[in-house]
Amino acid sequence: MDGIQPTPDASELPVLDISTLSTFKFERVLSEMIWPATETLIKKYTAQERVMVRETEEAFKRIVVPYIESFDANKLDWLYAIIQGKKEVERVLYRDEDTNEGFLIVPDLKWDQTSMNALYLTVIVKTDTIRCLRDLTTAHLPMLRNVRAKVFETVQAKFGVAKNKLRLFVHYHPSYYHFHVHVVHIYHEALAGMMAGQAHLLDDLISLLELSPSPPEKSILARMTLTYALGVEHPLYACFLKAGEEFV
Amino acid sequence: MDGIQPTPDASELPVLDISTLSTFKFERVLSEMIWPATETLIKKYTAQERVMVRETEEAFKRIVVPYIESFDANKLDWLYAIIQGKKEVERVLYRDEDTNEGFLIVPDLKWDQTSMNALYLTVIVKTDTIRCLRDLTTAHLPMLRNVRAKVFETVQAKFGVAKNKLRLFVHYHPSYYHFHVHVVHIYHEALAGMMAGQAHLLDDLISLLELSPSPPEKSILARMTLTYALGVEHPLYACFLKAGEEFV
Repeated sequence: MDGIQPTPDASELPVLDISTLSTFKFERVLSEMIWPATETLIKKYTAQERVMVRETEEAFKRIVVPYIESFDANKLDWLYAIIQGKKEVERVLYRDEDTNEGFLIVPDLKWDQTSMNALYLTVIVKTDTIRCLRDLTTAHLPMLRNVRAKVFETVQAKFGVAKNKLRLFVHYHPSYYHFHVHVVHIYHEALAGMMAGQAHLLDDLISLLELSPSPPEKSILARMTLTYALGVEHPLYACFLKAGEEFV
Repeated sequence: MDGIQPTPDASELPVLDISTLSTFKFERVLSEMIWPATETLIKKYTAQERVMVRETEEAFKRIVVPYIESFDANKLDWLYAIIQGKKEVERVLYRDEDTNEGFLIVPDLKWDQTSMNALYLTVIVKTDTIRCLRDLTTAHLPMLRNVRAKVFETVQAKFGVAKNKLRLFVHYHPSYYHFHVHVVHIYHEALAGMMAGQAHLLDDLISLLELSPSPPEKSILARMTLTYALGVEHPLYACFLKAGEEFV
């Protein structure tokens, strides 16, 4: 734990109550204090052993799906409150209300909205039927292309940043299993979350879906083996270990 | 140029004559001096404007192939000298002599061979028929799987590093158009060259080929749109601009 202690009962707090108390820059040093800190947050920010994992289609079905389904459905209430317009209404930059193909564009809490090179937005789709990139099919192509187009328009209009300065990507694994897209300025300092394996460019996903057969046949994204670095304290890694030697 | 000046006539020097004169570490600061510095090297290390480019199959054919073919064939003499065992023989860690599926594993010059977290090797295939990842087909699967297996064995035997600590990836675009694979410890600091779009995990390439039809049908890697950040001073970007608005 390296001297970091969790706030008592912090695990009971909903995610949106977590406050970034202080962020200050000193030349090239950026410091951030997060309070209260949950066990999950401490694990995220503590250096831990990592290993490369190769997740086959079979491993997704046998290990990852039960892992995703084990989450308490209420855990995403904070997200649905944003989607339904009950919270953070004033922060939303763009909103497409279509039930099946709609989405919201929201600035990430990490971004101060003034340094354009650090621009960081999140696109949250309205449908709750896409847990992660493995669930994407050719049927989602119009929505994904529309997300790309509206991000480009919105960022140009609101922040004057051209579309060829933006990197749009999806995390695998994501921090929550409701499909969302990260939008980051290409001059943003390299983050671990943008590394090959952790980040999948939205353009790559669109291209692979365009080359995929339509449902009921499985897409390339459903069938391919996905390889990524995983912290050994990540609860998913315990599931891999439990599943047996052929998976790790 | 920010005060960096090229060595006169440095562009005439073969790449292998470039010497790293001094590398020193001071706590977390690593400094490297390269002499003599060619114009190409200065451009590589100077911060320059970058843009995202979407390279379709059509753009590869119309823009990238002529760009690759414009290179002087002698430019890779230094590489063929290594492959043919005329140079750097003592540095080669593993050598498979098969004409079609053979390859060499060599430590990268950037790595001091003592800090395991900074482990950096390069695998160079013997065949000169694969310019870049777009040329890979299902016929290359046995070689690619063998590269992966032999890297794992060699690194375990020579350096005691386990296979699940290694990230194997291919650059797009690469710095030279003869197929090679980068092998880097997962604890290596995040480098720009490991970002999604610039780096493609060898495991992902293998998986996409496994899902591809065999020649003469085109592979997914040949057909997909590849998206990446490109420096505006990179000569390839000039080719994109020249090809017209529909490509940039």
